[in-house]
Amino acid sequence: MGLNGAGTSAGVQDRVWAALDSFRIEVPSWGFANTGTRFGKFTQPAAATTLEEKFADASQVNLLTGASPTVALHVLWDLPNGKGDVAEIKRLESKYGVRAGSINPNLFQAQEYKFGSICNPSAEIRGNALAHLLDSVEIGRELGDKDVSLWIADGSNYPGTQSIRKRIEWMEEVFASTHAALGEHQRMLIEYKPFEPAFYHTDIADWGMAHELARRAGPKAKVLVDTGHHLQGTNIEQIVTWLLYCNALGGFHFNDRKYADDDLTLGSIDPYQVFRIFHEILSCPDEAAVSQIAYMIDQSHNLKGKVEAMVQTVVMAQELFAKAALVDREKLSARQNSCDLVAAEETLRGAFWTDVRPIVREWREAHKLPVEPLQALNESGYVQKIAQERGARNANSVSSYA
Amino acid sequence: MGLNGAGTSAGVQDRVWAALDSFRIEVPSWGFANTGTRFGKFTQPAAATTLEEKFADASQVNLLTGASPTVALHVLWDLPNGKGDVAEIKRLESKYGVRAGSINPNLFQAQEYKFGSICNPSAEIRGNALAHLLDSVEIGRELGDKDVSLWIADGSNYPGTQSIRKRIEWMEEVFASTHAALGEHQRMLIEYKPFEPAFYHTDIADWGMAHELARRAGPKAKVLVDTGHHLQGTNIEQIVTWLLYCNALGGFHFNDRKYADDDLTLGSIDPYQVFRIFHEILSCPDEAAVSQIAYMIDQSHNLKGKVEAMVQTVVMAQELFAKAALVDREKLSARQNSCDLVAAEETLRGAFWTDVRPIVREWREAHKLPVEPLQALNESGYVQKIAQERGARNANSVSSYA
Amino acid sequence: MGLNGAGTSAGVQDRVWAALDSFRIEVPSWGFANTGTRFGKFTQPAAATTLEEKFADASQVNLLTGASPTVALHVLWDLPNGKGDVAEIKRLESKYGVRAGSINPNLFQAQEYKFGSICNPSAEIRGNALAHLLDSVEIGRELGDKDVSLWIADGSNYPGTQSIRKRIEWMEEVFASTHAALGEHQRMLIEYKPFEPAFYHTDIADWGMAHELARRAGPKAKVLVDTGHHLQGTNIEQIVTWLLYCNALGGFHFNDRKYADDDLTLGSIDPYQVFRIFHEILSCPDEAAVSQIAYMIDQSHNLKGKVEAMVQTVVMAQELFAKAALVDREKLSARQNSCDLVAAEETLRGAFWTDVRPIVREWREAHKLPVEPLQALNESGYVQKIAQERGARNANSVSSYA
Amino acid sequence: MGLNGAGTSAGVQDRVWAALDSFRIEVPSWGFANTGTRFGKFTQPAAATTLEEKFADASQVNLLTGASPTVALHVLWDLPNGKGDVAEIKRLESKYGVRAGSINPNLFQAQEYKFGSICNPSAEIRGNALAHLLDSVEIGRELGDKDVSLWIADGSNYPGTQSIRKRIEWMEEVFASTHAALGEHQRMLIEYKPFEPAFYHTDIADWGMAHELARRAGPKAKVLVDTGHHLQGTNIEQIVTWLLYCNALGGFHFNDRKYADDDLTLGSIDPYQVFRIFHEILSCPDEAAVSQIAYMIDQSHNLKGKVEAMVQTVVMAQELFAKAALVDREKLSARQNSCDLVAAEETLRGAFWTDVRPIVREWREAHKLPVEPLQALNESGYVQKIAQERGARNANSVSSYA
Repeated sequence: MGLNGAGTSAGVQDRVWAALDSFRIEVPSWGFANTGTRFGKFTQPAAATTLEEKFADASQVNLLTGASPTVALHVLWDLPNGKGDVAEIKRLESKYGVRAGSINPNLFQAQEYKFGSICNPSAEIRGNALAHLLDSVEIGRELGDKDVSLWIADGSNYPGTQSIRKRIEWMEEVFASTHAALGEHQRMLIEYKPFEPAFYHTDIADWGMAHELARRAGPKAKVLVDTGHHLQGTNIEQIVTWLLYCNALGGFHFNDRKYADDDLTLGSIDPYQVFRIFHEILSCPDEAAVSQIAYMIDQSHNLKGKVEAMVQTVVMAQELFAKAALVDREKLSARQNSCDLVAAEETLRGAFWTDVRPIVREWREAHKLPVEPLQALNESGYVQKIAQERGARNANSVSSYA
Repeated sequence: MGLNGAGTSAGVQDRVWAALDSFRIEVPSWGFANTGTRFGKFTQPAAATTLEEKFADASQVNLLTGASPTVALHVLWDLPNGKGDVAEIKRLESKYGVRAGSINPNLFQAQEYKFGSICNPSAEIRGNALAHLLDSVEIGRELGDKDVSLWIADGSNYPGTQSIRKRIEWMEEVFASTHAALGEHQRMLIEYKPFEPAFYHTDIADWGMAHELARRAGPKAKVLVDTGHHLQGTNIEQIVTWLLYCNALGGFHFNDRKYADDDLTLGSIDPYQVFRIFHEILSCPDEAAVSQIAYMIDQSHNLKGKVEAMVQTVVMAQELFAKAALVDREKLSARQNSCDLVAAEETLRGAFWTDVRPIVREWREAHKLPVEPLQALNESGYVQKIAQERGARNANSVSSYA
Repeated sequence: MGLNGAGTSAGVQDRVWAALDSFRIEVPSWGFANTGTRFGKFTQPAAATTLEEKFADASQVNLLTGASPTVALHVLWDLPNGKGDVAEIKRLESKYGVRAGSINPNLFQAQEYKFGSICNPSAEIRGNALAHLLDSVEIGRELGDKDVSLWIADGSNYPGTQSIRKRIEWMEEVFASTHAALGEHQRMLIEYKPFEPAFYHTDIADWGMAHELARRAGPKAKVLVDTGHHLQGTNIEQIVTWLLYCNALGGFHFNDRKYADDDLTLGSIDPYQVFRIFHEILSCPDEAAVSQIAYMIDQSHNLKGKVEAMVQTVVMAQELFAKAALVDREKLSARQNSCDLVAAEETLRGAFWTDVRPIVREWREAHKLPVEPLQALNESGYVQKIAQERGARNANSVSSYA
Repeated sequence: MGLNGAGTSAGVQDRVWAALDSFRIEVPSWGFANTGTRFGKFTQPAAATTLEEKFADASQVNLLTGASPTVALHVLWDLPNGKGDVAEIKRLESKYGVRAGSINPNLFQAQEYKFGSICNPSAEIRGNALAHLLDSVEIGRELGDKDVSLWIADGSNYPGTQSIRKRIEWMEEVFASTHAALGEHQRMLIEYKPFEPAFYHTDIADWGMAHELARRAGPKAKVLVDTGHHLQGTNIEQIVTWLLYCNALGGFHFNDRKYADDDLTLGSIDPYQVFRIFHEILSCPDEAAVSQIAYMIDQSHNLKGKVEAMVQTVVMAQELFAKAALVDREKLSARQNSCDLVAAEETLRGAFWTDVRPIVREWREAHKLPVEPLQALNESGYVQKIAQERGARNANSVSSYA
């Protein structure tokens, strides 16, 4: 087969196959459940309603794509009994052939967190929040030194209503205690987000804040980049490069967006940007920094079928990663050095324009995976089956805005 | 008393008092109920749980401010039996001394609207949506030719998933039928919004689309400007001026935001912008166009107390309107004509810098209103009272994200 | 050859070839000259310094791509003697085999336009501006009923310094007079832009304002969409669809941007968006509305070689247009109607992922055009030649910020 | 006199007067010269054309406001002979009674910096850039350990054309060398900016990058916040708080903007934001961190008179600083701690609504300054006088876009 603009040599195929062999992306348990916007949920009969159903769906995605062997867990929703649920997780891992992935505490839903969790002016509430973090760390440790992903939704809605500075101090304290509890090979990943659900100030609003907090917490604290958590215009691949430069990149929450944190499927709005992110990673000379990146999906669409959408994102991630692997980095580097702008740009985007679907299909075939995962999902009847099984339970998950 | 920069003459006081005498702003029934973000609701014990409680709260706001004699109604939430509930509305009007205001259909919550309401590819669903609009029109007519406020949340989340063009055609048809049903003095107000809950395309995304649809629907169709429904950087007061120029401005949904459609209390983020909007209105020579503007609040905060926040917004609107009334428009016009930029700007913002709180207090006193509405609310014990009465009911309105 | 995801039938090739046969895109004369940012210009020895050099460069681009037979002219810079220069234009058309394209008046550079041109409070200055527009119309008529492209840079930098409303009235008057002077087959295209060089309000800030002005001016007035002239997040393809729906789309100024009006080469930042714009056009059932679209380039990069960058943009436009022609619109429409979201999306973007470079190469070969236009340009030595000829003159075009 | 909402005690007046006594804001030499946009300059007859004229104008602003005793210098434009011009600067300081302020190297204008200065792939060019920085440091030292303000305009316009990572390394090296050359009490301030003149990636794009670079350079390196250098929606006061928390805030370049880096006069678009920035500073308990903040103006308007606009900004800064001084921080802190949101917000913005112009006038009077600086400037005839003297020279500074 021929890959226009990227050569046709066996070397090209090797590079793409090696990239695909190495690429793993975690799926989120909550990505199989009904979610929505503040205006309500459009429920799906096939949405997962129990943890076991989430494992079943995750397993299905992994069988179809060969690239998603782990599932991120949400402590509040998936382990309502905390450590008491670890045994059940292990049973599901064993039964469904996918392992637990990162552990996600929840510090945004309880009523006591109305004015903040680890940034709450109340020392008691901050203590409760820290306790939940420490529980999450322990759950992660018992499941095998899993990453703990910290999305702190804290913030304020109006100028003057909270002390921005004091809340930094409180975060620093809590993160120090959390870091101290981490297992030897365990990490805490600090996420940032400019707004929502807080609308004036969010306590960890950008990568600079997350990076500073991680640095102060200790060497096992890294930054988590959610691709949808940036102001319009942000050059995300540049932030990725800086974090790699500082050996501070812990991983990604992948999704796409056109406006705010829209949580759409990956590459659905701006695929060239995702390609550029992968390109920066694959260009990074610091192998240790690269090897520790956790690729995770965090999407929350209201309309597409849950399992279909997850397969779509995994496939898209594989294809964009394969495209990035196609870049002739030596040639690119030479052209960058000589400031041969047009030639350098064409070297980069020649890889983007190359249709990698044929070579990815061949890779799937060689790995005994379905050649067309989405089509295979449709033909399998899986979604119809679970829709029948779960339909009645899902009819009740409707919510109202006001 | 003296108003620095605006003269101290009786003329100034007359202008401000005349402005305050004329200013009315409608409160939304849903602004007294628990609302939240997609991540959940922080419930308030004092939130209204029934329509009667909403009328009671609205009445309280009007008693404190003297400026909010009407309450916007939401058909789905407030008139679940449609026209059958009109008699109850009239009873509440009479009991609480505030009247029904604009009628707000709901075309975003029912499961059948998952892929659109009046833009749905299914003719049957579009028909259902139209039927709801016609019901709303009739409700409005029976309550006294009330405006029908049309927020169409329709859109799509991913490129290619819907035909943008066909959906324009369908909207045009439905709006023509809706317009045909309007009472002689009744209007339909078409709202626009760039995104949320749709994240790729929203069928009525900006004022240009709303204006074109209103023009095609007929002379009783006007545009509704929600101040939070604009992309970052939009010059809202310029849009207001254009709509007035085209005699197409129907009214406002007032709130403030820093990022997206944050639905914060008015003027909490950018009060100078609200002042400029009022200034454009007060500068408009077309009195007929100005006289038909419906000022309405549409805020939906998660944290502030509901009644307090509503009083805050009404008071802020009064003060910013009073500031706009202080602008010496004759002098400003002369300086604009001579391109005396610095002097013109100082003429405008001199009014903004003037502290109008003393003169507004005097106006309140003269009208037998509480001099400090927020303080009066606190001292009245009203919120404590309703919190006790409603607390138990509100504890159940919690929702979960996933 | 095989086009994955788009079938391999002769029908596919026919569709792409027909699309390429029909596609013409105009190059701007100023795109060959040195331009820069407010902080200065980085001058290029090969930049065009005379109108004849601009024609020579445009001719070169057309010879290499076969798709750019016309060159947009800027009245102030290219016809400093107004109609007196028409004969010279005709000589250059004949000598270089490319024709004059749209006529671009300049109302932003003269010192008298400091406070506006057609919106200036001075009736005299507005008169001068109108006179320049009428001259431009006449130049266009004499060159063969060319479009007159109106970019009105007017606006204000500070709130209160100008009357937004009066300036609308003045524009309306000037455009009425301009329209009255148009030749029978001549059009005026009204451009919009949210900001720059005006930083508080721009008199024609969005498509709604341009559309309203065009509608008031008359049937020969249409809207010109510059892809870089939108606020962050704007759904441009939706605006294109609306303008087509209203039969109001006159044409495009194509470029790309990441932040503001960056004037980068087409598709360099978000190629998927350009593809979607072309898709909306090719999906439009109103052939008359589509046939009148003028595709024009308006790029103004500071760093890339001028001729190379122009070739790059034309080639990118051809490829993205070809991709859009690949969309199976019948299948897409069926999936949109049945709300089969994932399948519909994959139908659209399957065409985007298809590598059309092989088929475009075949088309070029069949049309006796260079198979790789950029490479052919490099090998031709053209840029080296003109750099030598023009180098000395360009050394003087440096400017300083302050 | 009475200050509504802020009490009327002598204590209030003392606080405002103390704030005004302490407040100094530096004016930029280039703020008196003709500047413009990329589309051209509208020249002003009164614009300064020589360094002496800039000192004369700066002196005038200081005489009128009593708050701007220093003038920022631009090495390229103001000291074309480098250290050789230091003696002349000292003569002007002595003659005009205003001192030299921060030293601003220029690494964006020379043709050799087309592809970057300290980030240029050419080691030779990076060396030239470093040499210019070292010269600037020495100039600063000779003038009295002045701050060196580093705005690095480096970046790239297209994906792939430069190595983002290598350029970080190069910056780090240059900044280390620059830091090593600083005098004992001298600082280097690192500025950040998201875009313009680079349109794909800017090497120092946000505060996180500037902060990381400053940290690596050494303790005399601090971050410089230009209020116009942020993406839409950024919470600038939060960044200020973080920088103070990290003892990393060096100073400000003050201006306002509605869209991009519009460089408008301070507070002209969003005065409440400036007030909030001052409030965060005045709330900071770390007096050492606060005391080292350099307040500087960096505005570059095209239309307002240069001297008038500078006076306007200084006066606005004084008034907004005075408002921030009015905040009852003890009461605010208590309300923040008890999460009494509405009361806390009203405490903050009550100070903003207070008309401080009377008390500022009294302060001016007591300090023998003109009570109304703008009016005093108008009455002085200064602008008319310099317009006559400089008019002919300014007529020649016109530039053309293409």
